[in-house]
Amino acid sequence: MFTLFHHPFCPHSRFVRLALGEYGLDLKLVEERVWERREGFLTLNPAGTTPLLTTEGMPAIPGAGIIAEYLDETHGTEMNGRRLMPTTVAERVEVRRLMAWFNEKFFEEASNPLVTERIYKRFMSEENGGGAPATDVIRAAKANVRYHLAYIGWLAQTRNYLAGDQLTYADLAAAAHLSAIDYLGDVPWIEDEAAKAWYARVKSRPSFRPLLSEWLAGVPASRTYVDLDF
Amino acid sequence: MFTLFHHPFCPHSRFVRLALGEYGLDLKLVEERVWERREGFLTLNPAGTTPLLTTEGMPAIPGAGIIAEYLDETHGTEMNGRRLMPTTVAERVEVRRLMAWFNEKFFEEASNPLVTERIYKRFMSEENGGGAPATDVIRAAKANVRYHLAYIGWLAQTRNYLAGDQLTYADLAAAAHLSAIDYLGDVPWIEDEAAKAWYARVKSRPSFRPLLSEWLAGVPASRTYVDLDF
Repeated sequence: MFTLFHHPFCPHSRFVRLALGEYGLDLKLVEERVWERREGFLTLNPAGTTPLLTTEGMPAIPGAGIIAEYLDETHGTEMNGRRLMPTTVAERVEVRRLMAWFNEKFFEEASNPLVTERIYKRFMSEENGGGAPATDVIRAAKANVRYHLAYIGWLAQTRNYLAGDQLTYADLAAAAHLSAIDYLGDVPWIEDEAAKAWYARVKSRPSFRPLLSEWLAGVPASRTYVDLDF
Repeated sequence: MFTLFHHPFCPHSRFVRLALGEYGLDLKLVEERVWERREGFLTLNPAGTTPLLTTEGMPAIPGAGIIAEYLDETHGTEMNGRRLMPTTVAERVEVRRLMAWFNEKFFEEASNPLVTERIYKRFMSEENGGGAPATDVIRAAKANVRYHLAYIGWLAQTRNYLAGDQLTYADLAAAAHLSAIDYLGDVPWIEDEAAKAWYARVKSRPSFRPLLSEWLAGVPASRTYVDLDF
């Protein structure tokens, strides 16, 4: 049994939930508001960030990329044809490249500013950086979403899934970040048919259901967030 | 034969050079000024960042962490007792945690702002963000170096190397980032004896020599940069 310290809008936590869902592994969720810098959490993860995965007999495992490698090393071979990390060296490079693209670049340029401004700041005290959303930050992040969406569309047109023929961590990373900002209505799906068709396929997977069913009080989800046919 | 697109002050590029040095692998260096966004480079790495490793028969491999995994998968077992990534699951988590700590957290909080303000800005045109160094950014980054140095000292006191008994990628990542800012005189070694003693050991390794012998015209290295007994 796994315990995941997460936040419902942390895109990296969403990635880990999707991955555990694909592996068919059960988990217990603990919501962590990292800006409160809770001492018990910092002892487990000095970096003070979500996600953090714990399981008996292992040190705590921090971060989306590290958790992905851990799950592949401990459960990958059992997955047979549904393994989320390919087995050839060149394909592994491509999956890791795209995981980093979304977990680092998309996060920094798009999902983190949007989620921080629109969600986290509601819960932060003033000394923690709370307050009204910064409209210039939101505007810049929304512009970045458009070029990322075009890149996803380009990948989806040249391949069956983002990193190749099969569903991999690359798809889960992209979908996790998109889902967090799709809740907020910040993805202009109309601009890219190929990206939209790829996302519809990933969103239809059973591993996605728990994410789509969680709503935040006071922040309604966008009109099409739960629609599988949006 | 490998080709590494790098910048002499890019801490992630330094990490890859140290790793290739430890593996005993030859490489050709190509200096890339990423802020110029050269088209040929963006074709190889759409993220537009250094380091980028190329070798025949493989897609280009971007980023310190991905290159580290690639080298371990292709050359790790040949290294026997000198492998830079341990073989047990728990130890691998710890090495990856510390690699990410330095390659992401230390980079963002300390090495990147210092190198950007003090080095990169000299070469950037005004529209690329060039100009005089921002003293407030430098001051904040130097304050962050102190708490990171204390963390390194704490690890070095409880273990032989940062992630455990043996030299791993964790040591190379920490040393790579420190070396870039040590050139600039931005590491207050006097504050932590344990961190200093650990760095002196890593700096004495043959893989470090090429880094220590490269000086940037117009920017003299700090008094103790090349000293193995500083």
